[in-house]
Order: sequence, then structure tokens, then C-alpha cells
Amino acid sequence: MSIIKQKTDQAVGILKELDIDVWLTYVRKTSEIHDPALYFLLEDSWLTWQSALIISKDGQKIAICGRYDAQNLEKSGIYDRVVSYDESIKDPLLNVLNELNPQNIAINYSIDNIAADGLTHGLWIRLNKILEGTVFLERLISSEKLLAALRGRKTEAEIERIKKAVDISEEGHRKVTETAKLGVSEEDIEEVLLKFTKDKGLTVSYPPLIHVGPTTTIGHGKASPDIKIKKGDLINVDYGVFYEGYASDLQRMNYILGEEEDIPPTEVIRAFETVVNAITASAEVLKPGILGWEVDQVARKIVTDAGYKEFMHALGHQIGRNVHDGGCLLGPRWEKYGESPFYPVEEGQAFTLELHVYVENHGYCSIEEDVLVTKDGCEFLSKRQLELPLLKL
Amino acid sequence: MSIIKQKTDQAVGILKELDIDVWLTYVRKTSEIHDPALYFLLEDSWLTWQSALIISKDGQKIAICGRYDAQNLEKSGIYDRVVSYDESIKDPLLNVLNELNPQNIAINYSIDNIAADGLTHGLWIRLNKILEGTVFLERLISSEKLLAALRGRKTEAEIERIKKAVDISEEGHRKVTETAKLGVSEEDIEEVLLKFTKDKGLTVSYPPLIHVGPTTTIGHGKASPDIKIKKGDLINVDYGVFYEGYASDLQRMNYILGEEEDIPPTEVIRAFETVVNAITASAEVLKPGILGWEVDQVARKIVTDAGYKEFMHALGHQIGRNVHDGGCLLGPRWEKYGESPFYPVEEGQAFTLELHVYVENHGYCSIEEDVLVTKDGCEFLSKRQLELPLLKL
Repeated sequence: MSIIKQKTDQAVGILKELDIDVWLTYVRKTSEIHDPALYFLLEDSWLTWQSALIISKDGQKIAICGRYDAQNLEKSGIYDRVVSYDESIKDPLLNVLNELNPQNIAINYSIDNIAADGLTHGLWIRLNKILEGTVFLERLISSEKLLAALRGRKTEAEIERIKKAVDISEEGHRKVTETAKLGVSEEDIEEVLLKFTKDKGLTVSYPPLIHVGPTTTIGHGKASPDIKIKKGDLINVDYGVFYEGYASDLQRMNYILGEEEDIPPTEVIRAFETVVNAITASAEVLKPGILGWEVDQVARKIVTDAGYKEFMHALGHQIGRNVHDGGCLLGPRWEKYGESPFYPVEEGQAFTLELHVYVENHGYCSIEEDVLVTKDGCEFLSKRQLELPLLKL
Repeated sequence: MSIIKQKTDQAVGILKELDIDVWLTYVRKTSEIHDPALYFLLEDSWLTWQSALIISKDGQKIAICGRYDAQNLEKSGIYDRVVSYDESIKDPLLNVLNELNPQNIAINYSIDNIAADGLTHGLWIRLNKILEGTVFLERLISSEKLLAALRGRKTEAEIERIKKAVDISEEGHRKVTETAKLGVSEEDIEEVLLKFTKDKGLTVSYPPLIHVGPTTTIGHGKASPDIKIKKGDLINVDYGVFYEGYASDLQRMNYILGEEEDIPPTEVIRAFETVVNAITASAEVLKPGILGWEVDQVARKIVTDAGYKEFMHALGHQIGRNVHDGGCLLGPRWEKYGESPFYPVEEGQAFTLELHVYVENHGYCSIEEDVLVTKDGCEFLSKRQLELPLLKL
């Protein structure tokens, strides 16, 4: 069964659970603006004119689209009924709604859940005009809970793809360890990863981030051709791929031993262990029901208790169809994160666990693992980094 | 000078022309939902947290973004000032607005112009919350006129890219003519084009559409492995590519001569000539100032006067950063097209001219050309198809 078939069936179950009568995804020109909900509603095809993809609590799947898109939707076999139009979507849409007579209609807007905020404001106004004078205008609600559940709760086929993406990232990270030589630049490492990815016939799930030594630019900066590996450097690489539409997101560390060093300096060891311990402690509390911020807090406290500066990002985000998959966030209760740290964790969600501390004169020490929430805990999708590879160059 | 630098400079001029004080592009997680306005505001990088890209009528370019995105924006050299934040965009955004004190603020929503409708409804609510209690809340307007002008009026560098994309499409179309043999399927032709595109290191600007003979599926249907070239078939192919981010969109025809035919039947010749004539006539009226629907009407009338069924799509759409580039549409005044057929044509816009008639027993007869609006008319970017290649197989 195709993943789209699985996910649309899963959506029916979630509609029942949330007591939502109808889920309405209203889009146009999806090659220009792509509502992320379409990842679960369409095989790899585009919709050109205004289209409505409708799933009802009682299991009906109805698509309304322009004449030239109808054939593809029919062939996909996802929708029980495909209604096509030439001039205006208004009448066919109202006909379907009148027939279903939903008491509430979930549409894709959300203040905090980016993955559930695919409806543009212009289309929102259009939808309001279409529904003007009908009972349905007052029945619109946000699909954020529905989409958080649908996107968060991975099916087995989805988990397999993520796992495969994780495996390939790990292979890429091993390539980095093999590549690390004195004089190799951040940009060189980036090129190795991009070539590795291309050779696999895949794409990266985000531009790889390469941090070499203490002079690196931390964050989403570009890899530098001028910053080159030297003794005493911490090397951090953040690299993930898309495998059949599903993302991995992993960070790994290497350390270049200094002149006459057999082990790293104490401050490097302590930093590495603090990061590992914070991941361990947060994984131990990660299970269905706990709130996102509560997990984040466990890791954050270990870092600050150890005397390090707080990391200024969330401990973990979901992964799936995107590398930042929206919904429940294992993050602090900061304004910019809105409601997302207050969502409870659910079984089947895949999260990153990632944090860093900075080590003066050596560089950025950060690890990122990928985990899957199970019935009563979590399991690592990645092979954990528990040791710091010590490269004698 | 980079295209982004050119386009942001051009935006300042258009703000003056339209008397708009500030253009505000408010986005988040652009890898998940990509506001099309970003094509003109960002080098190839992503923004993760909520970000505001601000251009003012007096030429200031200011970016507000999360800490980890600041470096990239600074390096790009597009923005005079990059303000970064950790917890909330609210204060830095209000500070910049208070400083600029704009009397109107254009934001990216539009009922009809898809390319100007990149603001999601959730972000629109967020922006309203940020501006609550300030004078700016009442000063928000749509950026649709600004974006229609900015996206429509191609710079020389943009026209060069489109021209190059057109040239490559034409090369692909010639490959189709070479490939056409009895028994070759629609899917075979599609594969030839996809391989040709990949070998060039490019991507198609939309999935190629292949129409072979009278049993083809018309529209955005998938190429069939079962529909194969036979004598008497009209072959229509719709194929374009992206070249450095800019699209071409071209349709070409071939005819397979029937047993003992030296020329096609009269009804095929008449259909082809009707399509060619309708394109000629509409190109003759296409010039700055004419309204979109007026151009469409010229072609539509030629088709219906010739006794054919009206084509159920617009005569022409703009091309550029997308294959359907939004703004003024050379289309009929149908509800689904909203205001777009009522926009006046402007110099520097690139349009398709495309229409079809259907020939019983032979197939789909459709040509699509790409044209550029000049000071007082238009010029063809594509080498026009005026003859129907007659293949004797």
C-alpha cells in the first residue's frame, strides 16, 4: 500500500479521535506554494488550479480540482471521488460540503505549527468569500492538532525510510572521519559530503554544517575555504539526507589530537561528556505524555549545572517529511516557539536530541541523535556517539 | 551584480512608483513553506526562525532573523543591516518599524496573484498580534501590485536566463522529432526528455506532457506506456526546463503521415493553421497597456470563429522564476482567474502564447510559444513553429 494511502487512512482515524467531521485542504498552483499537508494527500503530482482535498470522519475521500488535474488524481486511486471543474471551484465545493454537512471543518492554518500552516492568507480570504452566507463559515477550525498527529505518528513504512536516511547519514559521517587531515578545510569536508550524497542519488535534507576548530562560524553559516583542520581542533559536522522523501539529521564529533597529546585536554573531555550525558538524561525521560519543554529542561539543566552557557535553541525537533517536522517541540518555553513546547509527546514520533557546549581554543562540541518514541520510552534510530574519535594526524 | 541585488534595487524603484513606504516579507522555516517573494530577496539560503525582510522606499534594506541565520544574510551583502534575535522577533521588528514609521506596509498576500500570496494565514495572525496596539496594524496593504511589477519586469540578466531555458527546450523538442518512430510510446518520449534534461544537469520546469494520437489523455495526465505512435497521429509535446532558476514552457507538434499520404488531411492542416494564426494575431496586439483578457479574446475568437470548441484555459501566463509566474494573465474573465486578466500588460514581461484545437481521429493540436513584451509590442523568445513536421515512418 502506498504511503499516501496509509496516511489518508490514518487521517480518518485521527478525525474520529479528535471528533473533526471534515478536513479540507484548499490549495492552488502547488508548484509555486506547497502546503506541507500535501505530503500526505498527493502522490508526486502538482495541482494547478484551486483544488480542495477533502477527507471526512466517516472515511470519504473527495478531491475537487481543475479539469486538467483530474486524470492524475483519479489514477492515483487515493480519492473515492474526483470532481473536476472549468470555471470556478465554488459550486462543486459548496455541493460537497452541503452533502457532508460537517459541524466543523479543519483547514490548514496554525499560529505555531509550521507544518500545519500551509493555507495562504489570500486563499483564506477566498475561502471565506466562497463560504459567505453559508453555515460553514462559522465552522472552520485549525487542523493543527490533526496534522501534528498525522505527521508525528509515523507508520512503519515511514520509520523504515527515516531509519534508512539515518544509516546513510552515518555512512557520510564516517567519510568525514576518513577525510580529516591537517590542512583540509571546512569547504573540503562539505564537498566530500555533497559528493557522497549525489553519488547515492540522494539530496541533503539541509545544507551540511561544518565546524572546524575555534575560529569557525557557529550556526547556519557557510563552510569556509580558509578554516583548515589543525591540531587541537574539535570538528563538528551536521549532516542529513532525504531518503524517499524522509529526512535524517545527525551531528557527529571528531577531535584532532594536539602535539604530544594521547588524550584530549580535560576541558574537551568534560564538554563531550556533558553533551553525551545530557542526551542520555533527556532520552531517559522521553516517552508518551511528557510535555516537550519538560524534556528540553532536563538536558538544559545538565548543561547549565555543569557551568556551561545555555544553548540557544531547542533540544529536539521532529523529523519526517522535513528535517524540522513541526508539531511537538522539545524546546524551552520561549515566545518564538509558541505552543509547540507545550504539546505532549506521542508514540511513533521521531525526534532529534541535540545540544552543544563551546570549548575555548578547541571549538564547537555538539552531538545530535535521532530517536523514535515507543509505547513507554524511546529508542535510538542512530547508533549513538558515545566516544570521541581521536585522530592523530 | 547578483540578480538578487538587481531585483532588490528594482524593488526600491517600484516602491517609489507605487508610493509604498515599506515592503515587509515575513516568513519562517522557508524549507517547509517557501514564500515566492524570497526568489527576489535571498541568495540560495534558508531562513529557520521567523524572519522579516524589509525594503523601504528610501532604499533601506533591513533583515531581522534568528541568531543562526544572521551570518548568511550578512555575507550575502544584500542587506545594509542584519538584526538578529534569540527569543522573539517582536521587539526588533517593532523597533525597525518605529524607526521607519511607514504610512503603509505591503505584505505578501493576494487573493488572485499566487506569486504574491506567500504569507500563510497563521503568520498573518502572528503579525497582527505583533502589531496590536500600534499604528501599523491599520497600515498593512497587499504587496500584489509591487510583486506583479517586480516579478513581471524582467531585468536583462533574467531575460538571458529565460532565453537560455527556451533554447534548451527547443533542443529537447528536436530530440522528440528524431525519436518519433512507429511503436514509440508516450512514456518513451517522456523518458527521452527527462534523460536529455538530466544530461544537461538541469531540471524540468514541470513534468513534460506527451500527447500521442487520438487516444491520449489530454491535460496534466501521465504519459502512457500503452499509447504508441502510429500512422496518422498528431504528436504534441509540452516541455520546459529551469535554467539557473528561470523557466521555459514550450509546446511543439509533429505529424506522422498516414499510409500513402504526402500531406496531412485537410482537417489536420486547418487545425494547425488555426492555432498558428491565433498565436500570430494575439502576438500582434500584445503590447504594454493592453489588458490580459483583451489579448486572450483575440485568439479565442479566431478559434471559435473557425468553428472549433473554445479552449478551456488561458491563452498565456507569465514565465520567470516559475513556469506559471503569476501577475497579469492573458486569460478570459472567468471567476477562477480573479483579477489577473484585468491587469495591463507591461514592458519586460515574458508570456506564453498557447492554445489548442482537437482533431477527431488524429489528436491534440497545440502550440505554445514564449514571448517578451517590448516597448511597443512583443518579440518571440522561441523560434516559432510555423510548419508542421511531417514524418514518413
